[in-house]
Amino acid sequence: MKKAYIISTGTELLLGMTVDTNASYISQELASIGIMVVGMSIVGDNKENMQNAFLLAVQSADIIIASGGLGPTKDDLTKEVACEVMGVNLVLNEDEVNRLKDYFTRRNKNMPKSNLKQAMFPNKAIILDNPLGTAPGMYLKEGEKVIILLPGPPKEMKKMLVEKAKPLLIKEFNLTKDLSVKKTIKVFGPGESQVEDMIAPIMENPKGCSIALIAEEGEILIKVTAEGRDEENSIEILDSLVGEIEEKLGRHVFGYDDDKLKQIVAAKLKENNQTIAVAESCTGGLISKLLTDISGSSEYFWGSVISYSNEAKQNLLGVSEQTLAEYGAVSKETAIEMAKGVKKLANSCLGLAITGIAGPEGGSNEKPVGLVYISLATDNDLIVKELKFVGDRVGIRTLAAKSALDIVRRFLEFGGL
Amino acid sequence: MKKAYIISTGTELLLGMTVDTNASYISQELASIGIMVVGMSIVGDNKENMQNAFLLAVQSADIIIASGGLGPTKDDLTKEVACEVMGVNLVLNEDEVNRLKDYFTRRNKNMPKSNLKQAMFPNKAIILDNPLGTAPGMYLKEGEKVIILLPGPPKEMKKMLVEKAKPLLIKEFNLTKDLSVKKTIKVFGPGESQVEDMIAPIMENPKGCSIALIAEEGEILIKVTAEGRDEENSIEILDSLVGEIEEKLGRHVFGYDDDKLKQIVAAKLKENNQTIAVAESCTGGLISKLLTDISGSSEYFWGSVISYSNEAKQNLLGVSEQTLAEYGAVSKETAIEMAKGVKKLANSCLGLAITGIAGPEGGSNEKPVGLVYISLATDNDLIVKELKFVGDRVGIRTLAAKSALDIVRRFLEFGGL
Repeated sequence: MKKAYIISTGTELLLGMTVDTNASYISQELASIGIMVVGMSIVGDNKENMQNAFLLAVQSADIIIASGGLGPTKDDLTKEVACEVMGVNLVLNEDEVNRLKDYFTRRNKNMPKSNLKQAMFPNKAIILDNPLGTAPGMYLKEGEKVIILLPGPPKEMKKMLVEKAKPLLIKEFNLTKDLSVKKTIKVFGPGESQVEDMIAPIMENPKGCSIALIAEEGEILIKVTAEGRDEENSIEILDSLVGEIEEKLGRHVFGYDDDKLKQIVAAKLKENNQTIAVAESCTGGLISKLLTDISGSSEYFWGSVISYSNEAKQNLLGVSEQTLAEYGAVSKETAIEMAKGVKKLANSCLGLAITGIAGPEGGSNEKPVGLVYISLATDNDLIVKELKFVGDRVGIRTLAAKSALDIVRRFLEFGGL
Repeated sequence: MKKAYIISTGTELLLGMTVDTNASYISQELASIGIMVVGMSIVGDNKENMQNAFLLAVQSADIIIASGGLGPTKDDLTKEVACEVMGVNLVLNEDEVNRLKDYFTRRNKNMPKSNLKQAMFPNKAIILDNPLGTAPGMYLKEGEKVIILLPGPPKEMKKMLVEKAKPLLIKEFNLTKDLSVKKTIKVFGPGESQVEDMIAPIMENPKGCSIALIAEEGEILIKVTAEGRDEENSIEILDSLVGEIEEKLGRHVFGYDDDKLKQIVAAKLKENNQTIAVAESCTGGLISKLLTDISGSSEYFWGSVISYSNEAKQNLLGVSEQTLAEYGAVSKETAIEMAKGVKKLANSCLGLAITGIAGPEGGSNEKPVGLVYISLATDNDLIVKELKFVGDRVGIRTLAAKSALDIVRRFLEFGGL
């Protein structure tokens, strides 16, 4: 297995105000082609310290990748130091001189002499174009070692690493590309341990896949990775296991990979030509905000009533004084009247309502913080659900709003919960 | 100036899945007592690579701080390697043996022999207690070099660095504590370059302070740092300059340090016994969400009407058909009628309304994406403001919502914009 050492340069990284993220990105990219990182080092724009870092790197690894310090100023020392350590000379590369001249001419500027530095390369080096900036990178094989120099800005570095340096490394060391394929199944409803129970037999026998569960803002993400003998085979193995998991989880699966619950709900509303109006109490506008995060939401979203006060619940939504007095603002009965009320007000296909206690104040033994009622009224159906959440105000409001959206999703897709 | 080198150990840091944040934290703490970090290195749990990192560190710096690798398993090599590099022997420390035995006895367990490793220290070392974990740290002065070993978990590392290692370093090298004091002035309204212009004379002559401007989600943060001969003097210098800046910026200053605009508005509503109702179009619930992020908001927040459709604007808020036809939904006139309408509906002290084009669709030459009208209706006053924002949908909605809150803030504090 080939070993790599990563060097990040830049005095700002030593001051602790900026955390270096280049090294971990490079590390992951190298891992995907079977190269192991044995060390990382961060140095400032100081010649001696940089020399020491390169010496250590050359001593520890076959491949040295450095980012930063390729600019035209005196501070930019990386190329000079790397070549010194490798014992190779820098010479002016005519093509690069012309490219630089061209760059300045097109901007009606004279090229400062200092910029010539950026056109200096060892004869044997492969120059890596930088499509997003002015500093080109470098790939140099010297003896048994490979030195790769990339610019510091993450955008430039990433593009050049993936598109230029990685293919060169694959060719040089006859590496195989990563054959694995991944899919994330997104689940809303059950908790992490419930999902684990539901797919326990599959997790015990994952048929050549690896499965990881992650809980994230009320969603459970099931990350499945498969690696077969080639890409086609990997996809086959993956799809088969994903299918098995879906079968176990049924309606709880709301999407895959980058899907978002609010987008899924928006798409389903559009697809089914349904309009919706919302009555929110404890979530205070969050459900409406999520629904209107998506451009074009006016097609299906009529609007909302944020009935924070009892007065608003009565006057706008028509919740009866008796219901409020008898069952309270946070009750199944109030949720139902809110849903019916907003549907009637908007003359929409769906009326969605939520009422609850987001905390930290306002809870009681009988009605604790986190108690939430959600109701969905349609022409022919009426759904109401009691939920209990644990967490802080932000957490409870987020989970409550997402749960409301999930009820809409289930109704539109399956006609019920 | 004393130089330091930071080593982070742990194979997981090399895999790129975990980004090392210990090094940047240590760097900032060292900077505050005038110690300069000259290099950082990350190594896995591999003896040879770790030795090389320590050798480089000892060669480059006066102080070497390493975190991680102090546990009882074979993988935990940091102490062994550090002492080897420094040429000092590890011997069993009886106090630490007793402490460990005690730890296991209290848990009704026998101490595994491997744990004895954690009780091995050089004779000269100062052992640093770890109140949050089992692995103690170490402070060793050997020759002209100081080696500090801290555990890897950030919570444990931070506490031990600040409470144990830093005071020892201050004593050892006769360092002075950081005498600087900081304050962040928070501004809403003008842009970064406008703020810069307004305080240009102060920035040119900052009277012993340093000033930095940061733009963040529509807010401009002015970070002022002062360092005098002692803390009292620092505060004096800081307060005087902050006062000068405030005078230049006047009503644009909404708070300091951790203040949030929504909290300031909530506090002012409470303080002035004002109730508010909101009519939102383009922000789709975001203003209401911000106002209800704060627990106890029912004291001043009646509720909102998210009048996304024209129908909702007419039926609920009483915006006239003629206004909508003549001026359009996104107009000064509609904003005013929405504000008056929601105030009347809620019988609240304040009626706040917003209408605009959040994009990316829905813009025209006459009414481009980013055009927003905000109106505030009170018993005696009527404010309306046209604003133009540039950005994506999320950015425009965030700025629009904050601008609406800022208008409420200004009205409550100054009686107008």
